[in-house]
Amino acid sequence: VMKKASGRGRRPGRSEVREQIRDAARARFLAGGYQAVTMRAIAADAGVDVALVSYYFGSKQGVFGAAMALPVNPSDAIAAVVADGDLEGLAPRLLRMALSIWDDPATGGPLLAIAGAVTGDPDMRRLVREFVGREVVGRIAERIGGDDASARAATFSAQMSGIVFSRYLLGVEPLASMSVDEIVQRLGPALQLALFPTHGA
Amino acid sequence: VMKKASGRGRRPGRSEVREQIRDAARARFLAGGYQAVTMRAIAADAGVDVALVSYYFGSKQGVFGAAMALPVNPSDAIAAVVADGDLEGLAPRLLRMALSIWDDPATGGPLLAIAGAVTGDPDMRRLVREFVGREVVGRIAERIGGDDASARAATFSAQMSGIVFSRYLLGVEPLASMSVDEIVQRLGPALQLALFPTHGA
Repeated sequence: VMKKASGRGRRPGRSEVREQIRDAARARFLAGGYQAVTMRAIAADAGVDVALVSYYFGSKQGVFGAAMALPVNPSDAIAAVVADGDLEGLAPRLLRMALSIWDDPATGGPLLAIAGAVTGDPDMRRLVREFVGREVVGRIAERIGGDDASARAATFSAQMSGIVFSRYLLGVEPLASMSVDEIVQRLGPALQLALFPTHGA
Repeated sequence: VMKKASGRGRRPGRSEVREQIRDAARARFLAGGYQAVTMRAIAADAGVDVALVSYYFGSKQGVFGAAMALPVNPSDAIAAVVADGDLEGLAPRLLRMALSIWDDPATGGPLLAIAGAVTGDPDMRRLVREFVGREVVGRIAERIGGDDASARAATFSAQMSGIVFSRYLLGVEPLASMSVDEIVQRLGPALQLALFPTHGA
Protein backbone atom coordinates (compact mmCIF):
# COMPACT_ATOMS: atom_id res chain seq x y z
CA VAL A 1 0.00 0.00 0.00
CA MET A 2 1.38 3.40 -1.03
CA LYS A 3 1.62 6.15 1.52
CA LYS A 4 -0.41 9.20 0.64
CA ALA A 5 1.59 12.24 -0.46
CA SER A 6 -0.23 14.41 2.02
CA GLY A 7 0.67 12.22 4.93
CA ARG A 8 1.61 13.02 8.50
CA GLY A 9 4.07 15.75 9.03
CA ARG A 10 3.35 17.92 5.99
CA ARG A 11 1.84 21.22 6.99
CA PRO A 12 -1.55 21.77 5.28
CA GLY A 13 -1.87 24.87 3.06
CA ARG A 14 -4.33 27.71 3.61
CA SER A 15 -6.91 26.45 1.16
CA GLU A 16 -6.72 22.96 2.59
CA VAL A 17 -7.44 24.20 6.10
CA ARG A 18 -10.33 26.29 4.81
CA GLU A 19 -11.75 23.28 3.01
CA GLN A 20 -11.21 21.07 6.05
CA ILE A 21 -13.23 23.47 8.20
CA ARG A 22 -15.93 23.77 5.55
CA ASP A 23 -16.30 20.00 5.24
CA ALA A 24 -16.48 19.60 9.01
CA ALA A 25 -19.06 22.39 9.20
CA ARG A 26 -21.24 20.86 6.50
CA ALA A 27 -21.24 17.47 8.21
CA ARG A 28 -22.00 19.02 11.57
CA PHE A 29 -24.80 21.29 10.29
CA LEU A 30 -26.49 18.37 8.56
CA ALA A 31 -26.17 16.17 11.62
CA GLY A 32 -26.98 18.73 14.30
CA GLY A 33 -29.21 21.32 12.62
CA TYR A 34 -28.48 25.03 12.50
CA GLN A 35 -29.00 26.38 15.97
CA ALA A 36 -27.17 23.79 18.08
CA VAL A 37 -23.94 24.00 16.10
CA THR A 38 -21.20 26.21 17.52
CA MET A 39 -18.02 27.60 15.99
CA ARG A 40 -16.14 25.69 18.70
CA ALA A 41 -17.70 22.35 17.71
CA ILE A 42 -16.85 22.93 14.06
CA ALA A 43 -13.27 23.78 15.01
CA ALA A 44 -13.00 20.62 17.13
CA ASP A 45 -14.32 18.47 14.27
CA ALA A 46 -11.88 20.05 11.84
CA GLY A 47 -9.03 19.66 14.30
CA VAL A 48 -8.16 23.37 14.31
CA ASP A 49 -8.29 26.22 16.77
CA VAL A 50 -11.58 28.11 16.88
CA ALA A 51 -9.70 31.32 16.03
CA LEU A 52 -8.95 29.85 12.62
CA VAL A 53 -12.67 29.31 11.95
CA SER A 54 -13.31 32.96 12.77
CA TYR A 55 -10.34 34.00 10.68
CA TYR A 56 -11.57 32.20 7.57
CA PHE A 57 -15.35 32.63 7.85
CA GLY A 58 -16.04 35.45 10.30
CA SER A 59 -19.21 34.05 11.86
CA LYS A 60 -21.37 30.99 12.14
CA GLN A 61 -23.56 32.42 9.36
CA GLY A 62 -20.42 32.76 7.26
CA VAL A 63 -19.38 29.14 7.83
CA PHE A 64 -22.93 28.06 7.07
CA GLY A 65 -22.96 29.89 3.73
CA ALA A 66 -19.60 28.39 2.81
CA ALA A 67 -20.56 24.90 3.99
CA MET A 68 -23.71 25.00 1.87
CA ALA A 69 -21.67 26.38 -1.08
CA LEU A 70 -23.66 29.61 -1.15
CA PRO A 71 -21.95 32.43 -3.06
CA VAL A 72 -24.08 34.89 -1.09
CA ASN A 73 -24.38 34.80 2.70
CA PRO A 74 -28.17 34.95 3.08
CA SER A 75 -27.97 36.27 6.65
CA ASP A 76 -25.88 39.24 5.55
CA ALA A 77 -28.12 39.91 2.55
CA ILE A 78 -31.25 39.93 4.73
CA ALA A 79 -29.59 41.96 7.46
CA ALA A 80 -28.53 44.60 4.94
CA VAL A 81 -32.00 44.94 3.39
CA VAL A 82 -33.70 44.95 6.78
CA ALA A 83 -31.44 47.70 8.09
CA ASP A 84 -31.32 49.83 4.96
CA GLY A 85 -34.54 51.80 4.47
CA ASP A 86 -37.89 52.41 6.16
CA LEU A 87 -40.55 49.88 7.17
CA GLU A 88 -43.02 51.16 4.57
CA GLY A 89 -41.07 49.54 1.78
CA LEU A 90 -39.62 46.59 3.65
CA ALA A 91 -41.58 43.80 1.94
CA PRO A 92 -40.96 45.00 -1.63
CA ARG A 93 -37.26 45.47 -0.83
CA LEU A 94 -36.94 41.94 0.57
CA LEU A 95 -38.87 40.53 -2.38
CA ARG A 96 -36.63 42.31 -4.89
CA MET A 97 -33.51 41.11 -3.08
CA ALA A 98 -34.69 37.50 -3.04
CA LEU A 99 -35.68 37.54 -6.70
CA SER A 100 -32.33 39.06 -7.71
CA ILE A 101 -30.43 36.34 -5.87
CA TRP A 102 -32.59 33.51 -7.26
CA ASP A 103 -32.67 34.92 -10.79
CA ASP A 104 -28.88 34.90 -11.08
CA PRO A 105 -27.69 31.37 -11.92
CA ALA A 106 -24.43 31.95 -10.03
CA THR A 107 -26.27 32.57 -6.77
CA GLY A 108 -29.59 30.88 -7.49
CA GLY A 109 -28.04 27.61 -8.67
CA PRO A 110 -26.65 26.50 -5.30
CA LEU A 111 -29.83 27.65 -3.55
CA LEU A 112 -31.89 25.62 -6.00
CA ALA A 113 -29.77 22.57 -5.21
CA ILE A 114 -30.48 23.01 -1.49
CA ALA A 115 -34.18 23.61 -2.08
CA GLY A 116 -34.28 20.50 -4.23
CA ALA A 117 -32.76 18.43 -1.45
CA VAL A 118 -35.13 19.77 1.21
CA THR A 119 -38.07 17.51 0.46
CA GLY A 120 -36.06 14.31 0.13
CA ASP A 121 -33.50 14.73 2.91
CA PRO A 122 -34.76 15.07 6.51
CA ASP A 123 -31.40 16.47 7.72
CA MET A 124 -31.44 19.15 5.07
CA ARG A 125 -35.08 19.89 5.88
CA ARG A 126 -34.33 20.40 9.55
CA LEU A 127 -31.33 22.54 8.71
CA VAL A 128 -33.28 24.80 6.34
CA ARG A 129 -36.22 25.00 8.77
CA GLU A 130 -33.98 26.16 11.58
CA PHE A 131 -32.07 28.53 9.35
CA VAL A 132 -35.24 30.12 7.99
CA GLY A 133 -36.66 30.34 11.51
CA ARG A 134 -33.62 32.07 12.91
CA GLU A 135 -32.06 34.03 10.08
CA VAL A 136 -35.12 34.97 8.04
CA VAL A 137 -38.16 34.99 10.36
CA GLY A 138 -36.05 35.97 13.38
CA ARG A 139 -34.27 38.88 11.73
CA ILE A 140 -37.40 40.28 10.12
CA ALA A 141 -39.39 39.91 13.36
CA GLU A 142 -36.70 41.80 15.23
CA ARG A 143 -36.90 44.67 12.75
CA ILE A 144 -40.69 45.01 12.60
CA GLY A 145 -41.26 44.57 16.34
CA GLY A 146 -44.57 44.13 18.14
CA ASP A 147 -46.22 41.31 20.07
CA ASP A 148 -46.90 39.05 17.11
CA ALA A 149 -43.82 40.01 15.11
CA SER A 150 -42.77 36.37 14.72
CA ALA A 151 -46.19 35.35 13.41
CA ARG A 152 -46.22 38.21 10.89
CA ALA A 153 -42.65 37.53 9.81
CA ALA A 154 -43.46 33.83 9.41
CA THR A 155 -46.50 34.42 7.20
CA PHE A 156 -44.46 36.86 5.14
CA SER A 157 -41.63 34.36 4.86
CA ALA A 158 -44.10 31.67 3.78
CA GLN A 159 -45.36 33.87 0.97
CA MET A 160 -41.80 34.51 -0.15
CA SER A 161 -41.02 30.78 -0.23
CA GLY A 162 -44.12 30.27 -2.32
CA ILE A 163 -42.96 32.73 -4.92
CA VAL A 164 -39.53 31.10 -5.00
CA PHE A 165 -41.01 27.58 -5.11
CA SER A 166 -43.53 28.41 -7.86
CA ARG A 167 -41.19 30.48 -10.02
CA TYR A 168 -37.89 28.59 -9.73
CA LEU A 169 -38.67 25.02 -8.70
CA LEU A 170 -42.04 24.40 -10.28
CA GLY A 171 -41.95 27.04 -13.04
CA VAL A 172 -45.64 27.94 -12.90
CA GLU A 173 -46.66 30.40 -15.63
CA PRO A 174 -47.05 33.29 -16.04
CA LEU A 175 -45.04 33.78 -12.83
CA ALA A 176 -41.95 32.06 -14.22
CA SER A 177 -41.75 34.47 -17.18
CA MET A 178 -42.45 37.72 -15.33
CA SER A 179 -39.73 40.29 -14.80
CA VAL A 180 -38.52 41.03 -11.28
CA ASP A 181 -40.08 44.50 -11.57
CA GLU A 182 -43.46 43.06 -12.47
CA ILE A 183 -43.46 40.62 -9.56
CA VAL A 184 -42.40 43.29 -7.09
CA GLN A 185 -45.09 45.62 -8.41
CA ARG A 186 -47.76 42.93 -8.28
CA LEU A 187 -46.90 41.32 -4.97
CA GLY A 188 -45.16 44.06 -3.00
CA PRO A 189 -48.40 45.45 -1.49
CA ALA A 190 -49.76 42.00 -0.58
CA LEU A 191 -46.50 41.03 1.12
CA GLN A 192 -46.36 44.35 2.95
CA LEU A 193 -49.90 43.69 4.18
CA ALA A 194 -48.77 40.33 5.57
CA LEU A 195 -46.01 42.11 7.50
CA PHE A 196 -48.21 44.98 8.69
CA PRO A 197 -51.85 43.87 8.73
CA THR A 198 -53.14 46.98 10.53
CA HIS A 199 -51.46 49.83 8.65
CA GLY A 200 -50.23 47.99 5.57
CA ALA A 201 -53.46 48.43 3.60
CA VAL B 1 -42.26 -22.41 -14.77
CA MET B 2 -45.66 -22.13 -13.16
CA LYS B 3 -48.45 -20.51 -15.03
CA LYS B 4 -50.02 -17.53 -13.23
CA ALA B 5 -53.49 -18.14 -11.85
CA SER B 6 -54.76 -14.98 -13.52
CA GLY B 7 -53.65 -16.14 -16.97
CA ARG B 8 -55.25 -15.67 -20.38
CA GLY B 9 -58.91 -16.35 -20.70
CA ARG B 10 -60.05 -15.32 -17.23
CA ARG B 11 -62.23 -12.22 -17.33
CA PRO B 12 -60.84 -9.46 -15.10
CA GLY B 13 -63.08 -8.23 -12.26
CA ARG B 14 -64.31 -4.69 -11.77
CA SER B 15 -61.65 -3.66 -9.32
CA GLU B 16 -58.94 -5.11 -11.53
CA VAL B 17 -60.11 -3.08 -14.53
CA ARG B 18 -60.24 0.05 -12.40
CA GLU B 19 -56.72 -0.56 -11.16
CA GLN B 20 -55.52 -1.32 -14.66
CA ILE B 21 -56.87 2.02 -15.88
CA ARG B 22 -55.41 3.83 -12.90
CA ASP B 23 -51.96 2.34 -13.43
CA ALA B 24 -52.03 3.18 -17.13
CA ALA B 25 -53.14 6.73 -16.30
CA ARG B 26 -50.38 7.22 -13.75
CA ALA B 27 -47.72 6.06 -16.20
CA ARG B 28 -49.10 8.22 -18.98
CA PHE B 29 -49.47 11.36 -16.81
CA LEU B 30 -45.89 11.02 -15.61
CA ALA B 31 -44.59 10.43 -19.12
CA GLY B 32 -46.73 12.94 -20.99
CA GLY B 33 -47.60 15.67 -18.48
CA TYR B 34 -51.09 16.75 -17.58
CA GLN B 35 -52.46 18.66 -20.53
CA ALA B 36 -51.48 16.38 -23.41
CA VAL B 37 -52.99 13.25 -21.90
CA THR B 38 -56.47 12.28 -23.12
CA MET B 39 -59.03 9.85 -21.76
CA ARG B 40 -58.73 8.01 -25.07
CA ALA B 41 -54.97 7.55 -24.69
CA ILE B 42 -55.38 6.23 -21.16
CA ALA B 43 -58.02 3.79 -22.37
CA ALA B 44 -55.77 2.60 -25.18
CA ASP B 45 -52.86 2.06 -22.77
CA ALA B 46 -55.11 0.15 -20.38
CA GLY B 47 -56.53 -1.89 -23.25
CA VAL B 48 -60.13 -0.92 -22.49
CA ASP B 49 -62.85 1.11 -24.17
CA VAL B 50 -62.83 4.84 -23.38
CA ALA B 51 -66.40 4.52 -22.07
CA LEU B 52 -65.06 2.40 -19.22
CA VAL B 53 -62.63 5.16 -18.21
CA SER B 54 -65.55 7.61 -18.06
CA TYR B 55 -67.62 5.05 -16.20
CA TYR B 56 -65.05 4.53 -13.47
CA PHE B 57 -63.57 8.03 -13.12
CA GLY B 58 -65.97 10.49 -14.73
CA SER B 59 -63.42 12.93 -16.11
CA LYS B 60 -59.74 13.43 -16.79
CA GLN B 61 -59.49 15.31 -13.48
CA GLY B 62 -61.06 12.28 -11.81
CA VAL B 63 -58.56 9.85 -13.36
CA PHE B 64 -55.76 12.18 -12.38
CA GLY B 65 -56.86 12.29 -8.75
CA ALA B 66 -57.13 8.50 -8.66
CA ALA B 67 -53.84 7.98 -10.48
CA MET B 68 -52.06 10.21 -7.97
CA ALA B 69 -53.86 8.43 -5.11
CA LEU B 70 -55.61 11.63 -3.99
CA PRO B 71 -58.61 11.03 -1.74
CA VAL B 72 -59.90 14.46 -2.78
CA ASN B 73 -60.17 15.56 -6.39
CA PRO B 74 -58.44 18.96 -6.21
CA SER B 75 -60.13 20.25 -9.36
CA ASP B 76 -63.57 19.61 -7.89
CA ALA B 77 -62.59 21.13 -4.55
CA ILE B 78 -61.32 24.31 -6.21
CA ALA B 79 -64.27 24.51 -8.59
CA ALA B 80 -66.71 24.25 -5.68
CA VAL B 81 -65.02 26.98 -3.64
CA VAL B 82 -64.63 29.25 -6.67
CA ALA B 83 -68.29 28.94 -7.61
CA ASP B 84 -69.76 29.12 -4.11
CA GLY B 85 -69.70 32.66 -2.73
CA ASP B 86 -68.75 36.18 -3.76
CA LEU B 87 -65.39 37.49 -4.96
CA GLU B 88 -64.86 39.57 -1.82
CA GLY B 89 -64.11 36.49 0.24
CA LEU B 90 -62.58 34.31 -2.47
CA ALA B 91 -58.98 34.26 -1.20
CA PRO B 92 -59.84 33.47 2.44
CA ARG B 93 -62.23 30.71 1.25
CA LEU B 94 -59.57 29.12 -0.95
CA LEU B 95 -57.01 29.41 1.83
CA ARG B 96 -59.31 27.75 4.35
CA MET B 97 -60.12 24.94 1.92
CA ALA B 98 -56.46 24.27 1.18
CA LEU B 99 -55.51 24.27 4.86
CA SER B 100 -58.36 21.90 5.71
CA ILE B 101 -57.25 19.43 3.05
CA TRP B 102 -53.57 19.62 4.01
CA ASP B 103 -54.26 19.52 7.77
CA ASP B 104 -56.13 16.22 7.52
CA PRO B 105 -53.61 13.34 7.35
CA ALA B 106 -56.02 11.29 5.21
CA THR B 107 -56.05 13.91 2.46
CA GLY B 108 -52.82 15.77 3.22
CA GLY B 109 -50.67 12.64 3.37
CA PRO B 110 -50.88 11.71 -0.32
CA LEU B 111 -50.48 15.38 -1.29
CA LEU B 112 -47.38 15.60 0.86
CA ALA B 113 -45.96 12.55 -0.90
CA ILE B 114 -46.49 14.23 -4.27
CA ALA B 115 -45.04 17.52 -3.07
CA GLY B 116 -42.05 15.64 -1.71
CA ALA B 117 -41.41 14.02 -5.07
CA VAL B 118 -41.71 17.29 -6.99
CA THR B 119 -38.20 18.54 -6.43
CA GLY B 120 -36.45 15.24 -7.13
CA ASP B 121 -38.48 13.92 -10.05
CA PRO B 122 -38.61 16.00 -13.26
CA ASP B 123 -41.67 14.08 -14.57
CA MET B 124 -43.58 14.77 -11.38
CA ARG B 125 -42.46 18.40 -11.50
CA ARG B 126 -43.79 18.87 -15.01
CA LEU B 127 -47.01 17.13 -14.11
CA VAL B 128 -47.61 19.28 -11.04
CA ARG B 129 -46.62 22.45 -12.92
CA GLU B 130 -49.14 21.76 -15.67
CA PHE B 131 -51.82 20.72 -13.22
CA VAL B 132 -51.36 23.85 -11.10
CA GLY B 133 -51.30 25.99 -14.25
CA ARG B 134 -54.52 24.57 -15.61
CA GLU B 135 -56.60 23.49 -12.65
CA VAL B 136 -55.56 26.04 -10.04
CA VAL B 137 -54.36 29.18 -11.85
CA GLY B 138 -56.66 28.57 -14.81
CA ARG B 139 -59.82 28.03 -12.79
CA ILE B 140 -59.21 30.96 -10.48
CA ALA B 141 -58.32 33.24 -13.40
CA GLU B 142 -61.54 32.30 -15.13
CA ARG B 143 -63.53 33.22 -12.05
CA ILE B 144 -61.89 36.57 -11.30
CA GLY B 145 -61.72 37.72 -14.92
CA GLY B 146 -59.94 40.77 -16.31
CA ASP B 147 -56.94 41.32 -18.57
CA ASP B 148 -54.30 40.11 -16.19
CA ALA B 149 -56.40 37.46 -14.45
CA SER B 150 -53.76 34.77 -15.07
CA ALA B 151 -50.99 36.89 -13.59
CA ARG B 152 -53.07 37.66 -10.49
CA ALA B 153 -54.16 34.06 -10.10
CA ALA B 154 -50.54 32.90 -10.47
CA THR B 155 -49.20 35.26 -7.81
CA PHE B 156 -52.03 34.18 -5.52
CA SER B 157 -51.31 30.52 -6.20
CA ALA B 158 -47.63 31.11 -5.47
CA GLN B 159 -48.47 32.56 -2.07
CA MET B 160 -50.68 29.58 -1.32
CA SER B 161 -47.89 27.13 -2.23
CA GLY B 162 -45.59 29.04 0.08
CA ILE B 163 -47.93 28.61 3.01
CA VAL B 164 -48.26 24.89 2.25
CA PHE B 165 -44.51 24.47 1.74
CA SER B 166 -43.56 26.37 4.90
CA ARG B 167 -46.22 24.83 7.15
CA TYR B 168 -46.34 21.22 5.98
CA LEU B 169 -43.06 20.43 4.25
CA LEU B 170 -40.59 22.64 6.09
CA GLY B 171 -42.50 23.16 9.34
CA VAL B 172 -41.40 26.77 9.93
CA GLU B 173 -42.60 28.16 13.27
CA PRO B 174 -44.80 29.74 14.39
CA LEU B 175 -46.68 29.03 11.15
CA ALA B 176 -46.62 25.25 11.67
CA SER B 177 -48.36 25.53 15.05
CA MET B 178 -51.01 28.09 14.14
CA SER B 179 -54.67 27.11 13.86
CA VAL B 180 -56.38 27.25 10.48
CA ASP B 181 -58.49 30.15 11.77
CA GLU B 182 -55.44 32.14 12.75
CA ILE B 183 -53.75 31.66 9.37
CA VAL B 184 -56.91 32.59 7.48
CA GLN B 185 -57.33 35.67 9.67
CA ARG B 186 -53.70 36.71 9.26
CA LEU B 187 -53.22 35.98 5.60
CA GLY B 188 -56.69 36.27 4.10
CA PRO B 189 -56.44 40.01 3.42
CA ALA B 190 -52.94 39.77 1.92
CA LEU B 191 -54.01 36.94 -0.39
CA GLN B 192 -57.15 38.82 -1.38
CA LEU B 193 -54.96 41.80 -2.24
CA ALA B 194 -52.86 39.59 -4.53
CA LEU B 195 -56.03 38.53 -6.35
CA PHE B 196 -57.52 42.03 -6.50
CA PRO B 197 -54.74 44.62 -6.32
CA THR B 198 -57.01 47.57 -7.10
CA HIS B 199 -60.00 47.04 -4.84
CA GLY B 200 -58.64 44.38 -2.51
CA ALA B 201 -57.25 46.86 0.00
